[in-house]
Order: sequence, then structure tokens, then C-alpha cells
Amino acid sequence: MQTIKRLSHAEAQILIAGARDKAMQIGVPMCISIVDESGNLIAFERMDGGKVHSIQLSMDKAFTAASARKATHEYNAACTPGSLVFGIHTALGGRISVVGGGFPVVVDGEVVGGIGLSSGTPQQDMECAEAGLAAFASA
Amino acid sequence: MQTIKRLSHAEAQILIAGARDKAMQIGVPMCISIVDESGNLIAFERMDGGKVHSIQLSMDKAFTAASARKATHEYNAACTPGSLVFGIHTALGGRISVVGGGFPVVVDGEVVGGIGLSSGTPQQDMECAEAGLAAFASA
Amino acid sequence: MQTIKRLSHAEAQILIAGARDKAMQIGVPMCISIVDESGNLIAFERMDGGKVHSIQLSMDKAFTAASARKATHEYNAACTPGSLVFGIHTALGGRISVVGGGFPVVVDGEVVGGIGLSSGTPQQDMECAEAGLAAFASA
Amino acid sequence: MQTIKRLSHAEAQILIAGARDKAMQIGVPMCISIVDESGNLIAFERMDGGKVHSIQLSMDKAFTAASARKATHEYNAACTPGSLVFGIHTALGGRISVVGGGFPVVVDGEVVGGIGLSSGTPQQDMECAEAGLAAFASA
Repeated sequence: MQTIKRLSHAEAQILIAGARDKAMQIGVPMCISIVDESGNLIAFERMDGGKVHSIQLSMDKAFTAASARKATHEYNAACTPGSLVFGIHTALGGRISVVGGGFPVVVDGEVVGGIGLSSGTPQQDMECAEAGLAAFASA
Repeated sequence: MQTIKRLSHAEAQILIAGARDKAMQIGVPMCISIVDESGNLIAFERMDGGKVHSIQLSMDKAFTAASARKATHEYNAACTPGSLVFGIHTALGGRISVVGGGFPVVVDGEVVGGIGLSSGTPQQDMECAEAGLAAFASA
Repeated sequence: MQTIKRLSHAEAQILIAGARDKAMQIGVPMCISIVDESGNLIAFERMDGGKVHSIQLSMDKAFTAASARKATHEYNAACTPGSLVFGIHTALGGRISVVGGGFPVVVDGEVVGGIGLSSGTPQQDMECAEAGLAAFASA
Repeated sequence: MQTIKRLSHAEAQILIAGARDKAMQIGVPMCISIVDESGNLIAFERMDGGKVHSIQLSMDKAFTAASARKATHEYNAACTPGSLVFGIHTALGGRISVVGGGFPVVVDGEVVGGIGLSSGTPQQDMECAEAGLAAFASA
């Protein structure tokens, strides 16, 4: 029997709050998704003004990061023509995302969930996601 | 130019809180989705123990109710073999849901969003959705 | 070599105008789709206030009617549990629609396109679609 | 409660007429899609001879431009291997389009809809979309 560690909804809210605070600070309304270790959505927030396509994209970034156990921008760096990883970005009907802004949530070396941001530039998305992770780490 | 009224994220949180309180009271962890007037997700919460398939199902109930401007259990009542509405439940790749638990959010006679619950029986889902609507109406 | 008769865009506009006039008369803003003999969209109109899910649904009704060469309400009548046709409503990922409101467009006994309406009751959808066909027949 | 501005169907027809006139002038029959601020289709026209795959593609360009609030050719320029945005073109099952020919429709600094053209070269698609925007701006 396996025992699995999984983010609680209360912890997901901490991640969202941290990301939202940064998004408000930089003035970019964001879509914020938190998934569990299996990539399934726990919590989602579209700030007023967040983009419609970013609803799904933030979920897909979080899903990809939790499942692949790496940030989407790391996948991005490897996903160049000629690399054996190239093409991963079209897998699962495009649900795998290599756009920056998705990070695994790691506790004691174990991936317990993922966070995905979308609506800004990939750099802004990453900055806000990292703020969410920092809020969680210091909670 | 048309002028449209749309739920804010703050209002979506009131709807979720009302539904969550009722879900805790009856002891059934729920998936709760709030969409805007166009059916696009504003907020989502999976309470610890909420069911995985209910993530999408709660979104689809909220989408259906907001777009059709009627509760999903009303569609359900009309969707029987031999009725001209039969078949609506498989439309849009099954995204149209006629399972009880989705309601439009109406303000001054206008649909401004939708709420969808899933994880319990349809009756439980409906009870919690209505608690969300009541919390919003009295806010 | 086959020679195919296909609705022109100008003819599609006549069909839409006839359906729109009836929709305005009964006070129900509609989604109106016209497809060619292959089921591919020629023209679409969402009247102000038409429903979001009806965008796709009107297209699917028109597609089904043009391809099946019968009205969707005729399919509906046959699509009851126990009938060998039952299940057709979930085919093609639900793109086949048996909800009333889709009609083939027939010229000299040949199907040259389809019209699909959605946003009202199936009866209202059918009434407006038939008004579109009448406008085309008398043009 | 948020208040949103959305293109009316009458305004969508102005955009289509402007794009169609240019398409006729350059002799390339086009698929023309107009969506609202949430990316949902308001009006569509396939000129006689427009390409079948361009039906969906014009919708996806309009959707992308309205949601991302930028032209699809701008996304295209950023979407090169090694860029953190790379991979966006396969998101949402490929519904995100970075092919030139999609533009947001902006009024008083607010995105109220989108226009997408397809059937020609991207340059031709862009030229016709811009003609639609010009017709709308001068109406």
C-alpha cells in the first residue's frame, strides 16, 4: 500500500494568497490554479480582469509541473527542435504546457501538488507563482 | 455596444462560502464552481475529500446553468426520451449537464453567473448550491 | 466525377434573415447557423442576447440535419431507448444533435445545406428555422 | 459586480463588411469570425470559396486575440523555440492560434471583442482583418 502526501485545500489557499498578493503588487490580474500531486485541481481563482484562455492554461501549467515534477520553464528550456524532449508540448491534446509559470509544490523532497499562473508575461507568471511558493514555505 | 453585468471574484467567494458552510454542515465534501455570465470559471474549490470527476462536473453544471439561464435540474426534468429537448445532455462533448446541482446567479432579472456543485447526491448538490445563492442574496 | 450543389453565402444570408425576423417577432434572441451540404459552416449569427452554449448547438443541429438529410426532431422521435437508432445522440462526441431545431435545406430533392437554431425552446427553435426555410423558398 | 463592454451583433457586421470588402478587392475569399470580449462567437461568414479548415482557424484567431488582448502575429513573434512563451500555440487543444490574422477589437482602451481571418496568406488575412477594424473605427 502506498501512502501519498497531498496538499490540503487550506494549504492551496495559502499558495493562492501569496500569488495574488504579488499579482496585485505588479498590477496584473491573474488566473491562479493549484492542483494536487495527481494533477487534479484543488483551487482556482480568476482575479477580476484575468484572461479567459488563462483559465485552462493556468490549470495545465499546474498539472504539468505536478506530474512532471519540474517547473514548466525547465521543460521549456529542454523543448527545442532537435532535442529528444521536443514535441512534449503537444502531448495530451496540448494539456502539457511548457510555457513558463508552472511549478511543483515540494515538501520534504516530495511533490505534493502544483501551482500554475497565467495572464501576464511568462516572467510575470513565474514571479507570482514563486511568491505563492514562498508564502507556503513560510506558513 | 452592449453593457454586461458580471460577477466579481469577491462575489464568487461569497457564493462559495455559503455553499461550503452547508456542505460542512451535512458532512459532504464538495467541488464548488462559480462561472461568469459567459460560463467562464471565476473560482473553484475542491474541499478535502471532494471527488475527482466532480471537478469538471461542477464546472459543467455552472456553465450550463449560466448559459441556459435555468437550473440543471430543470433541464433534467425536460430531458426525457421522446421530448424534443432530449439529447441536450450530450451536447458540447457532454459539457452540457442536466444533473441537478447547477443554478444561474440572477441579479435584477439578469443572469450574471452560475454556481455548480458536485460530489454528493444531486439533492445534496442542489441544497448546497442553494445555500450559496442564499448567502449571496443576503450579502 | 461528381457535381455537387451547395448553398452560396448569399443564400445563407436569406435563410438567416428569415429566421432572425421570426426570432425578433417572438422576442427570443437566437443563435443561427447555416452549413453547406458537407455540414461545414457558411454563416453564423448570434443575436444580442443569444445563449453561449447555443453557438455550438446551433452549428451541430445544422450539421446533423445536412448530413443525415432529415430534421433533428425527426431523429429525436426515433431516438428512444429500445430503438436501434438510440445512441446516435452521443455519436461524434455529441456533435450529432437530436434536439429539435435543425433542418436540411433541400432544392429539387437534393440536400444543399442545413439550418440550425438554438436559444429558445425546441419548438421556438423549429419555428424560426422553418421561417428561414420559407424565406429561402420564396426568394 | 463588474460592468463589461461587449460588441453588439450590428457592430460585428460592420467589422465583417470591412474585411469582406478588402477580401473581394484582393480576390481571396475568406473565412471571417467576430467574437465577443470573452472569445465567444458573435458572427461568422465564409465567403464562397473560403477554405474549410479556415472556419475553425478564423474562430481560434479571433478567440486568441480577444482573450490575450494582442494580435496573433504578435504572439507569433514571441513564440519561438527557447522563448518562455513557446508552447502557447498548442494550448487549449490548439485553440490558441499564433498564426497571423487575429486582432483584438479595442474601444476606449478596452477589449470588447476580436476579429479573425483565414484562407489567404497570413499577410492577406492580416490585411483584411485590419480593413475590418478600420471600417469599425470610422463607423
